[in-house]
Amino acid sequence: MTNQFDAVTLIRKKREAQELSSEEIGWLIDQYTHGDLPDYQMSAFLMAGFLHRLSEVETSALTEAMLHSGVVVNLDMIPGRKVDKHSTGGVGDKTSLLLAPIAAACGVPVPMISGRGLGHTGGTLDKLESIPGFQVNVTLDRYQEILASHGAVLIGQTKEIAPADKKIYALRDVTATVESIPFVASSIMSKKLAEGIDALVLDVKVGSGAFLKPVDQALELAQTLVGIGERFGKKTIAYLTDMNQPLGHAVGNWLEVEEVMDCLRGEGPADLLEVSHLLAGTMIWLGDKASTLEEGIEKSKEAVFTGKALEKWLELVEAHGGDSAVLQSGSDSPHHAAYEIKVHADRDGFIGPMDTFELGMISVLLGAGRQKKEDPVDPAAGFILHKKIGDPVQLNEPILTFYTDRESMIERAKTRFVNAIQIVSDRSSPPKLVTYVVDAEGVRPF
Amino acid sequence: MTNQFDAVTLIRKKREAQELSSEEIGWLIDQYTHGDLPDYQMSAFLMAGFLHRLSEVETSALTEAMLHSGVVVNLDMIPGRKVDKHSTGGVGDKTSLLLAPIAAACGVPVPMISGRGLGHTGGTLDKLESIPGFQVNVTLDRYQEILASHGAVLIGQTKEIAPADKKIYALRDVTATVESIPFVASSIMSKKLAEGIDALVLDVKVGSGAFLKPVDQALELAQTLVGIGERFGKKTIAYLTDMNQPLGHAVGNWLEVEEVMDCLRGEGPADLLEVSHLLAGTMIWLGDKASTLEEGIEKSKEAVFTGKALEKWLELVEAHGGDSAVLQSGSDSPHHAAYEIKVHADRDGFIGPMDTFELGMISVLLGAGRQKKEDPVDPAAGFILHKKIGDPVQLNEPILTFYTDRESMIERAKTRFVNAIQIVSDRSSPPKLVTYVVDAEGVRPF
Repeated sequence: MTNQFDAVTLIRKKREAQELSSEEIGWLIDQYTHGDLPDYQMSAFLMAGFLHRLSEVETSALTEAMLHSGVVVNLDMIPGRKVDKHSTGGVGDKTSLLLAPIAAACGVPVPMISGRGLGHTGGTLDKLESIPGFQVNVTLDRYQEILASHGAVLIGQTKEIAPADKKIYALRDVTATVESIPFVASSIMSKKLAEGIDALVLDVKVGSGAFLKPVDQALELAQTLVGIGERFGKKTIAYLTDMNQPLGHAVGNWLEVEEVMDCLRGEGPADLLEVSHLLAGTMIWLGDKASTLEEGIEKSKEAVFTGKALEKWLELVEAHGGDSAVLQSGSDSPHHAAYEIKVHADRDGFIGPMDTFELGMISVLLGAGRQKKEDPVDPAAGFILHKKIGDPVQLNEPILTFYTDRESMIERAKTRFVNAIQIVSDRSSPPKLVTYVVDAEGVRPF
Repeated sequence: MTNQFDAVTLIRKKREAQELSSEEIGWLIDQYTHGDLPDYQMSAFLMAGFLHRLSEVETSALTEAMLHSGVVVNLDMIPGRKVDKHSTGGVGDKTSLLLAPIAAACGVPVPMISGRGLGHTGGTLDKLESIPGFQVNVTLDRYQEILASHGAVLIGQTKEIAPADKKIYALRDVTATVESIPFVASSIMSKKLAEGIDALVLDVKVGSGAFLKPVDQALELAQTLVGIGERFGKKTIAYLTDMNQPLGHAVGNWLEVEEVMDCLRGEGPADLLEVSHLLAGTMIWLGDKASTLEEGIEKSKEAVFTGKALEKWLELVEAHGGDSAVLQSGSDSPHHAAYEIKVHADRDGFIGPMDTFELGMISVLLGAGRQKKEDPVDPAAGFILHKKIGDPVQLNEPILTFYTDRESMIERAKTRFVNAIQIVSDRSSPPKLVTYVVDAEGVRPF
């Protein structure tokens, strides 16, 4: 594409709340990716697009332009319907590490490209890398090889995948244009569509630890994501799942890997298992290895019960260069925090509402996440939540244990933990785990 | 100012339509001027400010920050109240060349810093430079010297005056954030307040050749400008004057200088003289050399009638290094266009509505203005409008004569001129020259 359009005219058009054509959006993204449109024009366009929100047509065009800015992987040589899952991010959300081996054990190829933790949420790559030797940075050729040989693959974003999204995301981050649903949705989908998938399951978190806290915004994001997926011919199903408290008990990279091992041994926390079986079951169903969702969920449970999912997980760890021996029960943990501190209840009562965003931010403070992109993460840092919403507690009973090497942070973390978790007199029910399902037919309560 | 604020937080605040404090606006402008805030963050802020329009407080803060980004000239050593005029720009608007000598001849010091033509409008500097030898680029020291010795000075913007405005204007130009009244007003006023004035007369053009065509927008701009001036303690009066046709007959740099000479000899076009006497009269009144506006206007007329204004004009031209001999009647013109072409009426009737913006754009095509900032201007190019709105014309009677060196443009210019000037069957009255006056007390019909 050459200079068929004029950047100032297109920015002005969006400023005036007019809809840009797919060609116009495509031209802008193409020029920007090739360095022919300067950052300052793209940021003016992004702010106009943020305030006048992109239309469905514009959002699809943006997704397509970013998708085609790089390599779109072709996995046709691998038999079966390839299915991935994407989560909008939460605290203690380690489902990816369960879904890949479960779905693969049931015969569904899972090509999974994940991200790192940023802000209050953890990232799948950081969790994987807490397993000694695990390589998430592999070439796209090796990505296809691992998938073909082992039925699943878990890697980080490569520079070949949607480079325009990477460049635009970095600009949005520094120009206060992040939290726009069309931008968020096109960013997610451009990467997912480039992976070579046939179908996609979306886990849209909602609640105090989610990026989009109100349910109406989470629903709108889910609908936008499903709309894009369906327009690109990929069967897409989204669930709204609870993020009013961490999922499971463990928050922190190696702590979460250990909890994944518990789950694969059938001993994990009920909430984490329930969400994982729903998501894995949906993947198995969309991957044509079950004829209904219910059958998919049954197969998921069976894969865990029979130990096939655990076997597959250890195989995948080895395929990625990881040391599966450290995952065996009874083996020594490869990571030890210098400090292990208990936080106690300051009264009798029941666990009430939590500020899950704050819990995530405290885990960053302990070393489990990043404040800046370049920061290293400490695999041993994090916390185990012993009590969850609705659980009774007594004065001085431990409600969580945290792990850190940062002595100077201990007192601050204690205070912040106590403030982030309310203890109330009247027991309230735990939040409903899955509230809505969104697919091509629309939105339904779940 | 150091990093007391965070750019992304301030951009987000404006994005959410919240009002920024004066300190916050000041910090942003200061950081940007010193290169510590990148273009892409300023452009995101500008787009958010464009769409959520700056408040009065924000507009004043922006003006103050840009004003103090450079030198604020102190003219206290020159006795008398210093008064300048600013026009929002039009076609054939040569009043600055009349006002400076008239007001100076009446004892009002006129420190005038002007701009160049861009887009469809001419610029005072280009007109002055069509006088052989005339120097508009002088130091601020020489600016004060000329003002002290001759009672007026006419120069171009120097790099010491409001550098932040220059940098921000250039960015607005390429990010579709130009046409916002708070931005336009703060840009104008930051430069004018830096000149060292005590009072300011504003000529806000309205109509088909003005930047702001609708009267409500022109009024809003006038009120914003007056509001800023008064908040900075400068007596400020704005008039809304007609730009539904060129002011006077001449459009083009040297052609306009010749028309100015006609006016100073008392022979110029009635509309140009009427607007000039009103503006000059207001300057004389605000400069304390008349006790009422009416007396100011009388003094302005007297300065022309007695030849004192002409004398002052020739003195000012000499003071700027210009050759005043070429301005004397009977002397040879220093500029000659290769082609002198008449455009004829294609029917009997009366001159009706004109597309004055288009007339300005045609004059650019002929060489009188610039399409890009770097373009040279041809002092001889332009046109003389023989007929104005309401004048009767007969088939084949010349309605204008244009001058150019660009042979290839002749046919296109002819066609465009014919299309830009309607000839109608029923005579309509000429537009009212001055419609509103705006001062600290508010808006009144004039």
